[in-house]
Amino acid sequence: MGKQNREKLKIIPLGGLEQIGMNITAFEYQDTIIVVDCGLAFPEDDMLGIDLVIPDISYLLENEDKVKGIFITHGHEDHIGALPYVLREILAPVYATKLTIGVIEHKLAEHNLTSKVRRKVVSYGQSINLGPFRVEFIRTNHSIQDAAAFAIHSPAGTVVHTGDFKVDYTPVFGDAIDLQHFAEIGKKGVLALICDSTNAERPGFTESERTVGRKIDQIFSEHTDTRIIIATFASNVDRVQQIINSAHKFGRKVGVEGRSMVNIINTASDLGYLNIPDKTMISTDELSNYPDEKTVLITTGSQGESMAALSRMANGTHRKVKIKPNDTIVFSSHPIPGNEKAVSRVINDLYHRGANVIFQDVHVSGHACAEEIKLIYSLVRPKYCIPAHGEYRHLKAQAEIARKLGYDDEHIFVLNSGDILSLDQNSAKVTGNVHTGAIMVDGLGVGDVGNVVLRDRQRLAEDGIIIVVMTLDSGSGEVLAGPDIVSRGFVYVKGAEDLMDSAHEVLVDRLDSLTQQKIKDWGRIKNEVKTALSDFVWKETQRRPMIMPIIMEI
Amino acid sequence: MGKQNREKLKIIPLGGLEQIGMNITAFEYQDTIIVVDCGLAFPEDDMLGIDLVIPDISYLLENEDKVKGIFITHGHEDHIGALPYVLREILAPVYATKLTIGVIEHKLAEHNLTSKVRRKVVSYGQSINLGPFRVEFIRTNHSIQDAAAFAIHSPAGTVVHTGDFKVDYTPVFGDAIDLQHFAEIGKKGVLALICDSTNAERPGFTESERTVGRKIDQIFSEHTDTRIIIATFASNVDRVQQIINSAHKFGRKVGVEGRSMVNIINTASDLGYLNIPDKTMISTDELSNYPDEKTVLITTGSQGESMAALSRMANGTHRKVKIKPNDTIVFSSHPIPGNEKAVSRVINDLYHRGANVIFQDVHVSGHACAEEIKLIYSLVRPKYCIPAHGEYRHLKAQAEIARKLGYDDEHIFVLNSGDILSLDQNSAKVTGNVHTGAIMVDGLGVGDVGNVVLRDRQRLAEDGIIIVVMTLDSGSGEVLAGPDIVSRGFVYVKGAEDLMDSAHEVLVDRLDSLTQQKIKDWGRIKNEVKTALSDFVWKETQRRPMIMPIIMEI
Repeated sequence: MGKQNREKLKIIPLGGLEQIGMNITAFEYQDTIIVVDCGLAFPEDDMLGIDLVIPDISYLLENEDKVKGIFITHGHEDHIGALPYVLREILAPVYATKLTIGVIEHKLAEHNLTSKVRRKVVSYGQSINLGPFRVEFIRTNHSIQDAAAFAIHSPAGTVVHTGDFKVDYTPVFGDAIDLQHFAEIGKKGVLALICDSTNAERPGFTESERTVGRKIDQIFSEHTDTRIIIATFASNVDRVQQIINSAHKFGRKVGVEGRSMVNIINTASDLGYLNIPDKTMISTDELSNYPDEKTVLITTGSQGESMAALSRMANGTHRKVKIKPNDTIVFSSHPIPGNEKAVSRVINDLYHRGANVIFQDVHVSGHACAEEIKLIYSLVRPKYCIPAHGEYRHLKAQAEIARKLGYDDEHIFVLNSGDILSLDQNSAKVTGNVHTGAIMVDGLGVGDVGNVVLRDRQRLAEDGIIIVVMTLDSGSGEVLAGPDIVSRGFVYVKGAEDLMDSAHEVLVDRLDSLTQQKIKDWGRIKNEVKTALSDFVWKETQRRPMIMPIIMEI
Repeated sequence: MGKQNREKLKIIPLGGLEQIGMNITAFEYQDTIIVVDCGLAFPEDDMLGIDLVIPDISYLLENEDKVKGIFITHGHEDHIGALPYVLREILAPVYATKLTIGVIEHKLAEHNLTSKVRRKVVSYGQSINLGPFRVEFIRTNHSIQDAAAFAIHSPAGTVVHTGDFKVDYTPVFGDAIDLQHFAEIGKKGVLALICDSTNAERPGFTESERTVGRKIDQIFSEHTDTRIIIATFASNVDRVQQIINSAHKFGRKVGVEGRSMVNIINTASDLGYLNIPDKTMISTDELSNYPDEKTVLITTGSQGESMAALSRMANGTHRKVKIKPNDTIVFSSHPIPGNEKAVSRVINDLYHRGANVIFQDVHVSGHACAEEIKLIYSLVRPKYCIPAHGEYRHLKAQAEIARKLGYDDEHIFVLNSGDILSLDQNSAKVTGNVHTGAIMVDGLGVGDVGNVVLRDRQRLAEDGIIIVVMTLDSGSGEVLAGPDIVSRGFVYVKGAEDLMDSAHEVLVDRLDSLTQQKIKDWGRIKNEVKTALSDFVWKETQRRPMIMPIIMEI
């Protein structure tokens, strides 16, 4: 074995292995680090008030000089959403396919980073050399076009990273996933496969995007006398293409609502990823110039997001579009887990306005099911298996698939974010771990909301707050003003005067007794106030509002 | 037509038509009102801190003298949960089948109502006469035993109320739904059918509960060398029976965890609805006396409820049961919409502890799908159709089924809670509506948390609170102490000293300028403080915490 093989390759996932979202993985060989993906996560239910979550990249910052480039598999938020935040700290060049760069451009412009960040469009089949690494782009299929897998060649061996993928033999735009390319790289020997686990629990194959086109055609043919409004994911350009195709075929004009949808359609159209027949697209304002049955509106809001266009149409607050009885509304989507109730609310609202709602079977997933995962494993035949992209249950499901394919536990690595997997042809093992974490973004604040603040928000959300203020004489400790009690989110005060009066009495009694004991220590007084009030409130209401004594001194 | 037909029957749903939960319907004929079901609803996501929701029964209270009885279809919370609250205000007798009364007894005891409430066990086929009403009990199948439909006979005609039902030709306990009885009543002429809509969107038939038994047997036969822990709905006694059957067959002892599960098993067992072979059940403490592969534990927590037994086992906080690698955990349930993420969290936690988790296809629904609904319609052949039990989308789905069966819009009534549907053989129409609503229960408080409090809780949850206190001289208006700024849930203060210092400066400046303008009006001062601080905070952080100025006076 040559000298170049003496160093091990380190694979360090910095996120994405505990949830779907925040995908980012570092590959380190000697003095070079390359990063694959740089995504955000959407906040969990208990992250009250948080807008989005980005990965903690301390490890990259500590090794800033080593970081030579960021490779992006595709243009979804969970793969690109943290870029503006990360690039502000590490100005590495960004490599991706054309549409992916197109989507990123938009993001950089929004964050005033356009002039600072180097970015390079890479074609399928092309390779990028960075130090000891060569990163080869492989065509895949996904629910956004121009998705890529990477073959990451290093002196320690080749790692194939699938990104998010499915096998679509009949894609709407461009070619099918380049299975021959996977096979060819596999034939030469692959050290490890990092593979999408999202749908690993589902048996069989994910259907082709084209099947949705046929379903959309069918809906158009069965609803020739009503307006059609179709909600789908903003980034699913192929879906939009198929809706446009059906509209064209059935002689309808197409409008688009929702900022993110308009943006991506413009980008895709400018870059040639969307084929729009002349005079098909019109503005939403122009829609009213045509009879209902000659129009279709494509919109955001398929996940029931409260501020999205469809939700606002459904609850009657959309400025331009009013839902009418007889409208046909189509959800070309499935609810992402956690969004079921929000989607249901929108469906109910639409029905209440008399619309007809279609929400079943007008969608296919963008992720590989079990049989597709087996196919990729069988083409790539990696030495080591690294399930990625999913909650733990999904990673375990892929591990189970690998096991069925003959891999033993020594060759399957269900990693945690932060694990350092050191590997070469002879061995692979977790040799340590680096600091990782989730940084919460709330408004302009990045990382200024942590667990203490969240716990307070939870407490406030649950039972509100009671504030007790009083002014004490700095010398005597005598109460000069107060105690005044104010509450928010605890009880409707106008209906609870008795309760609040009794609480006040409890406080006055306690303060009197403290005065008699000549206790002037603020800390002690605050604690006594807290305990007295908290006990009283629990006894009376079985609630635990936050209790906040504030003492002023003159 | 005789004299007795001149009055119309009024059907007044007081809840249950906007969501799944809070089922309660009044039937009024002349001076008599009978009530069917008296359920609670679980709080929606935006009802922060709320424990449960009960219907507003103002209409019943206004007509207290008329209310002669409450009929309960079955023992689920969404049909009995509000009973203790309603019975405190209206002491009507309660009529239900044996197991249903058994479950209600428990609830009454908890609320110290046992001695006050009259209750009567009714058998299938039996009728109860109350004034002009005769209420006939009909056997159905559901996910709790002893479910009943009612034929409510009145001088204006007969209304059939299905309650929650499915058609199970091979139930685990007792007999199949009494289809002949439905047919017989239908043959005599039925004015209206009030029918369960929960699964109206689903085509086909719901499978028999017995199919789950075979699946459980299969799981036992394939996991003969591990402990088995099965989570299911506490009230699904048939499911528990089938687990016990499998355990007995495979020579395992059975333990039970979760208070609600233990309660219902005791009740069902006492009343003869559960057949437990000798020496099969043991306490959780005794489980450790047996080898793992000779035990099975039935537990609550199948919906990922954070305080339930399984969740506590999964996160390592259960006092008695520690999950071990190799344990086989079975979810004999589907996540109820809205619970998907919570369930997923528990599954991930269990996998992290090394357990094997089975969560697919070990459950069937307790509600009728489209074909079963068609069957009931075809047996009962009502004149008017009233879809019930569901969100609006589900009611609409049943209306669509009725339409396919030949009913026109004049004979289908998708009602809102509060609608008064007045009907007889000649006509049916909504003739008005009564006040209805949702009363929120938080701790001991019933109805003391309303929209104002909830809005405050939401605001607090989102961005926290900033409190500004100051003490003013009552004469001069001079600031004697403060302004002091305290925040909770807004920002981690130790990392944001600069921000808080600047906020303080903004306030001092504004107060100075007010003093110079000799403004002493508290309302004005508070408003100025609010605006100044809110503008500053938005500019710096793009957050909108609640801002609360408190002024004390000496």
